[in-house]
Amino acid sequence: MDVLVVGTGAIGGYYGGRLAQAGARVSVVARSDYEVVAEEGIRIESPAGDFHFRPHRVVRTAAAFGGFPDVLLVGLKVLKEIRTADLIRDAVGPTTAVLLIQNGVDIEGPVADAFPKNEILSGLAFICVHRTAPGKVLHQDYGRLVLGRYPGGPSETAQRLAEMFRRAGVPCEVTEDVVTARWQKLVWNAPFNPMSVLCGGASTQDMLGHEDTTRLVRAVMEEVCAVAAATGHPLPTDVVDRMIADTRTMTPYKTSMLLDFEAGRPMEVEAIVGNAVRIARSHHVPVPHMETLYALLSGLKGRA
Amino acid sequence: MDVLVVGTGAIGGYYGGRLAQAGARVSVVARSDYEVVAEEGIRIESPAGDFHFRPHRVVRTAAAFGGFPDVLLVGLKVLKEIRTADLIRDAVGPTTAVLLIQNGVDIEGPVADAFPKNEILSGLAFICVHRTAPGKVLHQDYGRLVLGRYPGGPSETAQRLAEMFRRAGVPCEVTEDVVTARWQKLVWNAPFNPMSVLCGGASTQDMLGHEDTTRLVRAVMEEVCAVAAATGHPLPTDVVDRMIADTRTMTPYKTSMLLDFEAGRPMEVEAIVGNAVRIARSHHVPVPHMETLYALLSGLKGRA
Repeated sequence: MDVLVVGTGAIGGYYGGRLAQAGARVSVVARSDYEVVAEEGIRIESPAGDFHFRPHRVVRTAAAFGGFPDVLLVGLKVLKEIRTADLIRDAVGPTTAVLLIQNGVDIEGPVADAFPKNEILSGLAFICVHRTAPGKVLHQDYGRLVLGRYPGGPSETAQRLAEMFRRAGVPCEVTEDVVTARWQKLVWNAPFNPMSVLCGGASTQDMLGHEDTTRLVRAVMEEVCAVAAATGHPLPTDVVDRMIADTRTMTPYKTSMLLDFEAGRPMEVEAIVGNAVRIARSHHVPVPHMETLYALLSGLKGRA
Repeated sequence: MDVLVVGTGAIGGYYGGRLAQAGARVSVVARSDYEVVAEEGIRIESPAGDFHFRPHRVVRTAAAFGGFPDVLLVGLKVLKEIRTADLIRDAVGPTTAVLLIQNGVDIEGPVADAFPKNEILSGLAFICVHRTAPGKVLHQDYGRLVLGRYPGGPSETAQRLAEMFRRAGVPCEVTEDVVTARWQKLVWNAPFNPMSVLCGGASTQDMLGHEDTTRLVRAVMEEVCAVAAATGHPLPTDVVDRMIADTRTMTPYKTSMLLDFEAGRPMEVEAIVGNAVRIARSHHVPVPHMETLYALLSGLKGRA
């Protein structure tokens, strides 16, 4: 299987490297990290064992790849200023499947619209992983993937990818309803990511350490469930209780939005809250707690 | 008229000084600033003309006053750790009126309960004024007072005080429904104070400079109106539009909560949002936007 990774940060580097371990021929498009990655590849430090990912080829743009991979893995952040469809267009051939391993809900639209004849796979990563320097990725914990065809249905490509990921030690699950899976992940992300920033750098345990903030976590989670249900993607009734209980048992954790904010990088505000708020509005589902978080993040001074 | 000021910060210093200008015999209880105030009094810089407030007496505690004033003016912040009733008890005689010039709603209860036979006057200051150093107060803008008997009704003492304030150039209005006046002031304070902090140091103009934050300002204002109405204190129907329009014409303004936060001082979270949220809950009025602000402020890391 020929794979081209676009976005060789934490997600692209880690999951691209795992596919290479499983025997895929994995090339990467590296932009700012080109020199280092072309010379040294990507070194991944992981509790499951450090490994060295030597891409088959390292190119600067999708056009420079000069062909069409079987799978184009997108590990880019979801930001207005990153035009994913444009960045991948030159490497998307008639039979290329595009796999988006990205945060948020309703993030597949622009790519699905740009490549209406291609298979679009949507992937959710449950992982703590960071790019610490060009060509260096630190995998701290977790790593499970959920993959599925967008907007739904079975996919042989997803099954084949899942087998490869599992071969490389990545727990990977295929779903025929990845949109529901995205809503379910948002149940966690929608409260914890914004609140970690707005509470001045709070960890998950800080947020669950006050009665008032725990109540807010729960209120936002319930709003996400209501929006999901209104769009035809009802979630399990115990999801809120379960996520709060599970989070209490986790090591105190800094969210990706907080890490981005602290590092002065743009935050995925639209993918994680803006899109959900807009979907709620269009379905007339009141989400006042989420609206408040979204407004505060929109007005946040000093954000990139 | 014998007046004793407890809390010689910005509010106590400024309004105490104005009563002295109008001919009242004004003494002050100074705690941390005792040495400076006893020696030099309080110097007030004001666009209406700088002035020097030389208190009749400066004492360290209410007990040291050794008597009972006609009016005991409280200019303390409303904070859990400041036990106002205890601080003033020794100077509250049978005919002493207690005037609370403080922020927030539902802040009179503890004092009214502690002195059930005394006249309690509640005062709202519409003013930009800061204590810049011991014995130094900077009056930047505005200055209007609204006074009234708590919980309501006419008051001769309020009328006499208002005349004195006016004589000293302070616009002062007496109301027979000061609780409604407090709710009306909260319409402004409830959104702008918390949001200024949570948006990372936003001025009023910053907050009205985004569509999303303006929508949040409005939503919180409408919630305050709903709670006020539910408690029997309906506000004028145009109050929200009027306050937003008026604020747009103001010089960009840092709220008192933001100034406190930036200086590492405790913020008046309970007086400005906590009390309103609790009253809303007890009246079953949903205030999800205000609840969200309250939870975030409660969870805010690095707050004093």
